[in-house]
Amino acid sequence: MNFPSNIFNSHSKKDGDFFLSISKVLGFKPKDVSIYRRAFLHRSVNLKDKKGNPMNYERLEFLGDAMLGTIISRHLYNEVPGGDEGYLTKMRSKIVSRKHLNELGKDLDLIRFVETKIPKSHFGDNIHGNVFEALIGAIYLDRGYKYCEKFIRERVIEPYVDIEQLEGKVISYKSLLIEWCQKQKKEFKYEVYEDDGKDLLKHFGVRLFINGKQVSKARATSKKKAEEKASKRAFFALQHKIEKS
Amino acid sequence: MNFPSNIFNSHSKKDGDFFLSISKVLGFKPKDVSIYRRAFLHRSVNLKDKKGNPMNYERLEFLGDAMLGTIISRHLYNEVPGGDEGYLTKMRSKIVSRKHLNELGKDLDLIRFVETKIPKSHFGDNIHGNVFEALIGAIYLDRGYKYCEKFIRERVIEPYVDIEQLEGKVISYKSLLIEWCQKQKKEFKYEVYEDDGKDLLKHFGVRLFINGKQVSKARATSKKKAEEKASKRAFFALQHKIEKS
Repeated sequence: MNFPSNIFNSHSKKDGDFFLSISKVLGFKPKDVSIYRRAFLHRSVNLKDKKGNPMNYERLEFLGDAMLGTIISRHLYNEVPGGDEGYLTKMRSKIVSRKHLNELGKDLDLIRFVETKIPKSHFGDNIHGNVFEALIGAIYLDRGYKYCEKFIRERVIEPYVDIEQLEGKVISYKSLLIEWCQKQKKEFKYEVYEDDGKDLLKHFGVRLFINGKQVSKARATSKKKAEEKASKRAFFALQHKIEKS
Repeated sequence: MNFPSNIFNSHSKKDGDFFLSISKVLGFKPKDVSIYRRAFLHRSVNLKDKKGNPMNYERLEFLGDAMLGTIISRHLYNEVPGGDEGYLTKMRSKIVSRKHLNELGKDLDLIRFVETKIPKSHFGDNIHGNVFEALIGAIYLDRGYKYCEKFIRERVIEPYVDIEQLEGKVISYKSLLIEWCQKQKKEFKYEVYEDDGKDLLKHFGVRLFINGKQVSKARATSKKKAEEKASKRAFFALQHKIEKS
């Protein structure tokens, strides 16, 4: 990358912090950290490289958008062998929807890395999704396809992609579970605890009790998500009972 | 892949032919040739796998389309460091246009592999582009990202992607060259010869002479393409002279 060498040299403490923080988000160490810097440069900063080309995250966003689409396509291809081209296209567009990408970026609190001349409070929601895509573009340039796949698997597919839910077959496992408990006259309780794990993001923990017995627990970046996750786990653990009822 | 084991077993001669022919198109040997078979199965054949899922090229086309977009994006990112997101998007859509993909499929004569219940003469032009994309999807499943990149580089980018031409800056190197020759009062001659190379596709060779001296030669799958390629080579060889004129 053609970063003007004088931009970041004077901020070596700040550089070290960025390297550590971004490594935590990525789950691996960057080879060329300057590429990741670029993924968070807003056009308002108005930087140019040695050749006079504008430097901001928009080109990386273009690249990351394409790579994300490819890896989600591959995932859907494998997971839904009966889905035709139209179905796969529809499901992919749900997963990579603007709204969903903004959530992903927010959950990782990527906005803290953004360098901008405009106050961050002035940005709309899309900044979160844009830099999330730019980050994928940066991974692609820095470490190639395999690392993108790993990152997208860990940060998008595993925590968020539930095909049943996307298909609209299951809106909420929590409501399914509550309905079942009420029908069966079972008491249920969601117990929230603050999670003091070593994650970079604050997590919430939820334990789900049915008739006083813990049936599942889960952690997530919001209380609502943790409840949903715990419900889903309980749902699958109890599935044979639920289906018979 | 869940291919019903009885479909192709009875055609071992035909299978061997397919393996050889598709290896030539690919430039490498398939690991699992059944995936490539699927890339040419038209829905009219109405095949299903063991689990009852329809087998045709449409799902692979979905996958190949995404991968092609990603690799072209990466190419443009590298080649045009000054292009913004809008420019990159526009250029990519020119390269992966329906018309262009159909040409690529036709040049490789992919339709010879298509298995269909409908007479091939009834297909429109899009069949060529569709199976070209499906073929990329098959490479992705069979050999992964690296082989897709290699295939797209050899079969799409090197022979066909000329950024100057796509930008509309240069419509035709042949006309540029002829114009220059006429202005400079130089004689030019395109000499076509039939190429007897070992390529799987028939190629045409063209030698370009200016004032009786050969300045370039080129091979391509049509006379027109070979002339354009030879003109382009001559153009760059003579560029310093042309620019001064």
